[in-house]
Amino acid sequence: MQTITDIKKMKSFIKEARKKGKTIGFVPTMGYLHSGHLSLVSAAKKSSDVVVVSIFVNPLQFGPKEDLKKYPRDLERDKKLLAPLGIDVIFSPTAEEMFPPDFSCYAEETKLSKGLCGKKRPGHFKGVITVVLKLFQIIKPDIAFFGAKDWQQQSIIRKKVKDFHLDVEINTLPTVREEDEVAMSSRNSYLSKKERKASRILYQTLCFIKEMAENDEKDIKKILKNAKKLLKSEPLFKLEYLEMVDPETLDPKDTADKPLVALIAGFIGKTRLIDNILIR
Amino acid sequence: MQTITDIKKMKSFIKEARKKGKTIGFVPTMGYLHSGHLSLVSAAKKSSDVVVVSIFVNPLQFGPKEDLKKYPRDLERDKKLLAPLGIDVIFSPTAEEMFPPDFSCYAEETKLSKGLCGKKRPGHFKGVITVVLKLFQIIKPDIAFFGAKDWQQQSIIRKKVKDFHLDVEINTLPTVREEDEVAMSSRNSYLSKKERKASRILYQTLCFIKEMAENDEKDIKKILKNAKKLLKSEPLFKLEYLEMVDPETLDPKDTADKPLVALIAGFIGKTRLIDNILIR
Repeated sequence: MQTITDIKKMKSFIKEARKKGKTIGFVPTMGYLHSGHLSLVSAAKKSSDVVVVSIFVNPLQFGPKEDLKKYPRDLERDKKLLAPLGIDVIFSPTAEEMFPPDFSCYAEETKLSKGLCGKKRPGHFKGVITVVLKLFQIIKPDIAFFGAKDWQQQSIIRKKVKDFHLDVEINTLPTVREEDEVAMSSRNSYLSKKERKASRILYQTLCFIKEMAENDEKDIKKILKNAKKLLKSEPLFKLEYLEMVDPETLDPKDTADKPLVALIAGFIGKTRLIDNILIR
Repeated sequence: MQTITDIKKMKSFIKEARKKGKTIGFVPTMGYLHSGHLSLVSAAKKSSDVVVVSIFVNPLQFGPKEDLKKYPRDLERDKKLLAPLGIDVIFSPTAEEMFPPDFSCYAEETKLSKGLCGKKRPGHFKGVITVVLKLFQIIKPDIAFFGAKDWQQQSIIRKKVKDFHLDVEINTLPTVREEDEVAMSSRNSYLSKKERKASRILYQTLCFIKEMAENDEKDIKKILKNAKKLLKSEPLFKLEYLEMVDPETLDPKDTADKPLVALIAGFIGKTRLIDNILIR
């Protein structure tokens, strides 16, 4: 397992692998890895000859008031977690390497990125798809792996692949959860013990919604009204949004008669958490 | 020479060519070809095993009040012009094929595209680099060919290739001119005989600027003041901009002590014309 920080070196590594006819699996991350990331890496390892994991805290996807500075970083810890998995390369460029002072080209998606997290985090998805486009061009993967926890993100990346005709298959894997079913997230490290316990309310609410919808309650307004009552039982949680939308187009729905995804976002203290669940 | 209109078919043609180890040269055009385009095609033919010429009037790069509808189109004429050059594929997708109703991903450049034509044609370069990004992903050329007449365009495309780490070499070839030195342009077909004669003022002014600058006049303000006097001798020409800038960064300059490009844009009747000249 080698660590590459230089874009040119990364590209020439890929060129060599391609010459030998190897397939390439890619897992883009912001590091501070948890079992969710590692499940993506294992899947990449199974599917591809060569596996590249990028570790890059992308400044473009943080708003000016967000947690870029305090976002947890520990490359040595990440290396130890990745070592047993037999991957080939950790690609961990600096911010200056990825975004030199004269950097001026961006990619954006204008429909799927408008609602949900996009409404509350303007510029976030532009930052995400710009960096993912760059990473895809550097690493040229056959398959790239994303977690279902960031549902809107993987939808937008799928759209970008379609609209820009990129030759990469997007593989979205299920959210990995802690023992108490809280979704794994690098940001869970911000939570106090009390806050960590309170964070269970996100998935509890999603499960409540799924059960109502799958037990023949078709009126989404009614479902959401009841779910919001449940949310109020947790005073530490401050809701940002709770929506039920089409899993692909992310259009809000009135009736639970087709497959849906329910998504939730909110704050516990200063920590912003998200989660989602697929319905039927 | 085959004509392909379908993106999937184009991609599978390229895949086959790549399998055989062929290099690919690409000339993106909006059709209604002239000798300028054909010089790009000849260069592509010399450099590459397989040559693809795209003919696509890109709706994204026209403003709402611009000439999208009346832009000259004649695929049969273009085929006849290309046939003797021995190219492999004309790629001529429909607007619906390139931009289906759910299309929502764009690329943009935020520095080089602000001035010059970008100031007068908001959205133009976003349209250009979005379509060129798409075409590059479909055709995956080793080399792509652009004309120096669209100097700002080739600068922005070079920047996109750098910022997005695309594996394509950009080759910019000199502007091809008519016998009276007017730059070749598909839009010249709009001009009446009188207007066509008046259009000589663009290049005459650029040559005047080049001569002043290369004959030791370093004060750009003074050069431009004199050049604008010359422009007034042609009453049919309505100036949009006349600038002297750094050829790569497109930053305006005060002193003509380094290589520069002088660029001009303006209207003759309803026809917008551009031209430029390199200085030292």
